[in-house]
Amino acid sequence: MTPMTNGLKASDLQLRFCTNETQLNREAFVDKLKRLGFDISVSEVFSPAPAAVAILKERGYRPHLLVYDGLLPEFDSVDTTNPNCVVIGDAAEKFSYQNLNEAFRVLIGLEKPVLFSLGQGRYYKETDGLALDVGAYMKALEYACDLKAEVVGKPSPIFFQSVLNDMRLQPHEALMIGDDLVNDVGGAQHCGMKGVQVRTGKYRPSDERHSTVTADGTVDDLAQAVDMILKQRH
Amino acid sequence: MTPMTNGLKASDLQLRFCTNETQLNREAFVDKLKRLGFDISVSEVFSPAPAAVAILKERGYRPHLLVYDGLLPEFDSVDTTNPNCVVIGDAAEKFSYQNLNEAFRVLIGLEKPVLFSLGQGRYYKETDGLALDVGAYMKALEYACDLKAEVVGKPSPIFFQSVLNDMRLQPHEALMIGDDLVNDVGGAQHCGMKGVQVRTGKYRPSDERHSTVTADGTVDDLAQAVDMILKQRH
Repeated sequence: MTPMTNGLKASDLQLRFCTNETQLNREAFVDKLKRLGFDISVSEVFSPAPAAVAILKERGYRPHLLVYDGLLPEFDSVDTTNPNCVVIGDAAEKFSYQNLNEAFRVLIGLEKPVLFSLGQGRYYKETDGLALDVGAYMKALEYACDLKAEVVGKPSPIFFQSVLNDMRLQPHEALMIGDDLVNDVGGAQHCGMKGVQVRTGKYRPSDERHSTVTADGTVDDLAQAVDMILKQRH
Repeated sequence: MTPMTNGLKASDLQLRFCTNETQLNREAFVDKLKRLGFDISVSEVFSPAPAAVAILKERGYRPHLLVYDGLLPEFDSVDTTNPNCVVIGDAAEKFSYQNLNEAFRVLIGLEKPVLFSLGQGRYYKETDGLALDVGAYMKALEYACDLKAEVVGKPSPIFFQSVLNDMRLQPHEALMIGDDLVNDVGGAQHCGMKGVQVRTGKYRPSDERHSTVTADGTVDDLAQAVDMILKQRH
């Protein structure tokens, strides 16, 4: 991977990294991208956990957390005593029968059960094969408790809006680039931004004739997307 | 519990026991009821597992089984090599992250994924508290694979119909008694049978003003239901 976003950094354009990563905290995520050659700082990264923390504090929620251990530091500042809601992330092997029952019991014991889900992915690729993502467990708890979870992360409009707010930009002034047609491109478009898909990662040829989402552009990779943006500036 | 169904047995009425039990095989289930004083034989018990076995054989399906160990003997006669569908029951602690991923991988690897669910319960009471039932895990796999499971057991019409077929009765000639308003009473009514609810077990006072299901009668317990039936015969 070529760190082509550095070309953007040299321009006067603002840059933010929006990820649904919920296994690493932002520090670890930035370290990982830096090793790949990206010039990036923690304040430029938007991920579901800190967005959830802001919501929890704003609404006075004390969460029961069912998240990956590596993500726990993001919640250090949150009161988790006597929980009045549940937050689930991609907890991977922590999605045990016992832990799911525990989260369920917290929810069903509340007068008004509230569930936050850090993303709603169906599945993803692990080194040893495909694995169920947080969205599947969200659906399990939604059904058992007869509720609708509040999704934090892409494609949630509240998530994209928080990133726009941070840049002090209007939606039409921003462009989203991503490999996930529904969550990246569709989510951004739903907020009034333009959305460009890269033909890497999660991209599938069938995305280019998707029934509900049509990208504003499709490019081979991030380098080509950056090139396109910088050329249009001149 | 008084084995009041013995009064029915002395009459010329036919009697069947319909259960969504998927942790015990029928032999173990009958032993349990016999210890409670019920005069009952295996051929009178209808449960999801044998109903599923009939469907699997009829349609040439070889299942990947994610069920409780105690239920496995019900599937002894079924070919499980090179699976082309998945069957889930209330697997309890066998609903591990690993086992769910395994079932998911079988489904997602099929050209046309087929999932059978032995019931669709939301949760049930264990000795140590409430536990997620098979329906929650069904929803997780449905979402991850973008499919709709085929539910075997109450309230599935195909399940009630198989019981009527066994008794060689038309729906209007049969009466269902149960504690579960939606799955027992509503399911039976949906097939054209009458449905009576008992105020025991899963019964909740709010059932008597339910938005979609209205029982044809509500009685305090099974004894009262049997009494009512026998009296109406004279």
